[in-house]
Amino acid sequence: MSLKVVIIGAVAAGPKAGCRIKRLLPEAQVIMLDRDDLISYGGCGIPYYVSGDVSELQGLMSTSFHMVRDADFFRGAKGIEVRAGHEALAIDRAAKTLRVRDMKAGEEYDLAYDYLVIATGSQPFIPPIPGADLPGVMPVADLHHAETIKSLVAQGQVSSAAVIGAGATGLEMAEAMADLWGVEVHVFEMAAQVLPGALDQEVAHMLANHLRAQEGINLHLGAKVEAILPGEDGRAAAVKADGAEYEADLVIMATGVKPSADLAREAGLELAANGAIRVDQAMRTADPAVFAAGDCVAVRHLLSGEELYIPSGSLANRQGRVLGSNICGGRAVFPGVLGTFCIKLFGLSAARTGLDEAQCRKLGIEAVSPLVVQADRAHFHPDMRLMYLKLTVEKESRKVLGCTALGENGDAVVGRVNAVAGMLPFGAKVEEVSNLELAYSPPLGAAVDILNAAANTAENLIAGKLRPMPPEEFSRRLHEEDGKTCFLDMRAIDNAAPFLESLAPRWVHLPQETLTQRLDEVPRDRDVVLVCNSGVRSYEAQVMLDAAGIKNTYNLSGGVAAVKKWGEPILPAEEE
Amino acid sequence: MSLKVVIIGAVAAGPKAGCRIKRLLPEAQVIMLDRDDLISYGGCGIPYYVSGDVSELQGLMSTSFHMVRDADFFRGAKGIEVRAGHEALAIDRAAKTLRVRDMKAGEEYDLAYDYLVIATGSQPFIPPIPGADLPGVMPVADLHHAETIKSLVAQGQVSSAAVIGAGATGLEMAEAMADLWGVEVHVFEMAAQVLPGALDQEVAHMLANHLRAQEGINLHLGAKVEAILPGEDGRAAAVKADGAEYEADLVIMATGVKPSADLAREAGLELAANGAIRVDQAMRTADPAVFAAGDCVAVRHLLSGEELYIPSGSLANRQGRVLGSNICGGRAVFPGVLGTFCIKLFGLSAARTGLDEAQCRKLGIEAVSPLVVQADRAHFHPDMRLMYLKLTVEKESRKVLGCTALGENGDAVVGRVNAVAGMLPFGAKVEEVSNLELAYSPPLGAAVDILNAAANTAENLIAGKLRPMPPEEFSRRLHEEDGKTCFLDMRAIDNAAPFLESLAPRWVHLPQETLTQRLDEVPRDRDVVLVCNSGVRSYEAQVMLDAAGIKNTYNLSGGVAAVKKWGEPILPAEEE
Repeated sequence: MSLKVVIIGAVAAGPKAGCRIKRLLPEAQVIMLDRDDLISYGGCGIPYYVSGDVSELQGLMSTSFHMVRDADFFRGAKGIEVRAGHEALAIDRAAKTLRVRDMKAGEEYDLAYDYLVIATGSQPFIPPIPGADLPGVMPVADLHHAETIKSLVAQGQVSSAAVIGAGATGLEMAEAMADLWGVEVHVFEMAAQVLPGALDQEVAHMLANHLRAQEGINLHLGAKVEAILPGEDGRAAAVKADGAEYEADLVIMATGVKPSADLAREAGLELAANGAIRVDQAMRTADPAVFAAGDCVAVRHLLSGEELYIPSGSLANRQGRVLGSNICGGRAVFPGVLGTFCIKLFGLSAARTGLDEAQCRKLGIEAVSPLVVQADRAHFHPDMRLMYLKLTVEKESRKVLGCTALGENGDAVVGRVNAVAGMLPFGAKVEEVSNLELAYSPPLGAAVDILNAAANTAENLIAGKLRPMPPEEFSRRLHEEDGKTCFLDMRAIDNAAPFLESLAPRWVHLPQETLTQRLDEVPRDRDVVLVCNSGVRSYEAQVMLDAAGIKNTYNLSGGVAAVKKWGEPILPAEEE
Repeated sequence: MSLKVVIIGAVAAGPKAGCRIKRLLPEAQVIMLDRDDLISYGGCGIPYYVSGDVSELQGLMSTSFHMVRDADFFRGAKGIEVRAGHEALAIDRAAKTLRVRDMKAGEEYDLAYDYLVIATGSQPFIPPIPGADLPGVMPVADLHHAETIKSLVAQGQVSSAAVIGAGATGLEMAEAMADLWGVEVHVFEMAAQVLPGALDQEVAHMLANHLRAQEGINLHLGAKVEAILPGEDGRAAAVKADGAEYEADLVIMATGVKPSADLAREAGLELAANGAIRVDQAMRTADPAVFAAGDCVAVRHLLSGEELYIPSGSLANRQGRVLGSNICGGRAVFPGVLGTFCIKLFGLSAARTGLDEAQCRKLGIEAVSPLVVQADRAHFHPDMRLMYLKLTVEKESRKVLGCTALGENGDAVVGRVNAVAGMLPFGAKVEEVSNLELAYSPPLGAAVDILNAAANTAENLIAGKLRPMPPEEFSRRLHEEDGKTCFLDMRAIDNAAPFLESLAPRWVHLPQETLTQRLDEVPRDRDVVLVCNSGVRSYEAQVMLDAAGIKNTYNLSGGVAAVKKWGEPILPAEEE
């Protein structure tokens, strides 16, 4: 008799597992259940459907070549039987059967399995905010929400919207509504930064500054949403946060998701502290006949060893394949995660992999993570944009732990982060990133790539040759005016002039190439911040001054370019 | 007394070494010589100056923030003394002195050193073609050539040009002249492909097809240039190749470069068989006081161990830094090269790293290198373009050896190849690319990235689950009409209809989802090529047919998308 596999859940991990099994063991019988009729879709595409980038909902449910992945498709093309509108009620592990309800017919039946795959995904986490259950308040959990939101927005019924939660979904939805549809958007986030947990604080600040200043998104960080208030028609009409009220015809709950693990828990399978199903590297639960994958399972961080919950369509697909191989007798392994992440918002993209500065601090790892600003290809090429990149390196072991980058050429940003993601599982050292042989041609790369440069900077920092000052600290010092800090501008006079005009005598002009002749002009009685455009000349100046015995200096990381991206005005004129 | 370092050559490796030394040992005395007055430039930028992408020659000699890197800059900002117009004549290793001629003053002098850095770069290799010395024939070796060529083209004095050599410089110059200036360009290449040695044959064929069909570049591959013929004014007027004559007001010799290693050879330093200076991983010659870096040295391939000559501004910079560290007492290492390369031509970009199929064959390595075609981000996103990618994997060890990619989004192409470049030095296995955690978000990546998919395909191929047929073989079989091959179109009828009309009965329509019901329609007496749009459905069909005992099938790699890119017409109508 042929192998019988039952899969619960038909969105990402489930279909991937099913297809893999049918490719390896075409004679296997695979039955895939889902409560919903809409199956096998790219949920991450929902904001792009709302924005209009994707015009048809079917686009999110199709293959690259326009085959709709519905029940007929899975039956005909994949040999998988899909039972949509069927809900899994209980697992009888001893009998190896699954209790199922046909939701339309209202009937229940038992389904026997040799192997069971739990791919039940996630469900929205809705915080206990008064008014969260009003009409006009909704999460972005499935294609039904996508259709509702898009039709409201497209029909002009939303002039102002609130998004609760500044994670990826929240920000992408904010962009979708503001960009094409001109909706006034307020985003409320409990944490002090956008993308908490997903993006380095400093880079997140730069991204937030861009969303606010360039794109007009109203970001409320560190905000406490107290209630969602109804209008006269009983629908949500405003959000009350930190005592103020903000109009909102539509409130999107982008407050994250939690694993759908009830079925597994009730069957006595082990859950992690974060509530997700615990599996081994083969994606198998403690029951050898039961596997699980996708948004319902816990994952292990490859570097920190922490047990995490990271819902992601990309992980789901890779886990589904591993699991499918193993059900067919293979020995495939899903070793763990790096937390690689990226987001594109209004033409600015950010990406990260591994551990960032704050995560290292939390884990008690002593690491450096200098900010480097450099052209993303030959600086003389017209497609060039500045990139802002932080490479995180453990001090003692010199092991590379992570990378975060930001820039306008999204593919270039992601490309750098992906290159580091490829090296992290091997325990790469900082020298190996210094020597990393990236492709070079002026339209596509730089002779000394920003990744090489970032590794060089981290190396110098570990060697004690560099005393950096991050843009945040620079801004603080600039606004203190307590006479304890002096700023030495190492650039040409035309760059320095407006700063001198506003900020002298605290701002002093001393071009780097004249430095050796003018050592006596460097103040010794105060902290001296060395300033140039990108942080390179000021680093050279610091080395020269150190050699001359002048060690009261700090090098502004990433130079004026970084401060501008950071978003604090330097000149009073910029404060308008 | 402070350390005295003399550097010969002030283009890329030399300046980098000098700056590194001054940063580590500010008290060191660094003297950098160059025969030329134009120093420290990005030679790889020359085609972009000719095309007009870079408007000023100074752009190629400036820092990111518009500081011109001339002798004054090096003296003031870096503390390096530059002697431009000074030629190194001979090294006296015993006395540790360098014989130098001041070319302007016509005087010679000796320069003592503690350490000598040879960064003499390369010089054009000019093949012995009759007429190669005519006026109007020139290489693209330095900024002087760049200026001459651009002024000729910009003044309208070039209506047709010939480029001899289809390496990176040759093709970039062809693009520069054809794209903006509308020059009719003929490119002559001895080898049977463009970018020989630099790009996988199959991908190079796709790129060549694009240059010919889309951009009107006249490519003559496998061509023998017999002579360059003068016009009445004595200047080059035509190129004679394979018996035919082609008008050319300008002939560019892009026939490669050779190391400038005479000085080293005459000083008794060891050269590699390829004529370049042999150094160890510290970039030191056999003489502990003499280092060398850049286009004059030989490099070792990290995977094959071969001693190669790969001139590159990017390698030069990394080597210069390693060498500088070591002169200052460090223990830095330049471990070798992967041959990472990229090029952008008319909106199509190609990149590679490591070893390709043909290189493996030459080295006697048994490897697979299937062609995979997939969207470069979520297939429903409007920025999506197809990418064509080959991952090379050693069969027995399952070690990843290289990657080649092609596509319209150049940063995305390079990003994939760079991710593999980061993994190659660690001996990554194919499973590690299957599991590679690349950043995913619909505008920037796919849930199953093409790299993951390529690794999966390579794995299936090694496991014997896949019998691919490359586009070249497909085209050959299609044109043979010998009745030995039948083509099974697995797509929907609207895709298949025009093919059926032209090619039936050899072309048979059998949609993949109907296959299990129609097994008896699959011919058993001929080779059967399974065809779909991208090679995924045809792979599934092959698995199904194998399970049914029908094993006379081949899966068209990359599907119709790959054949189209390959450039052979499938339908008679396309042949016009």
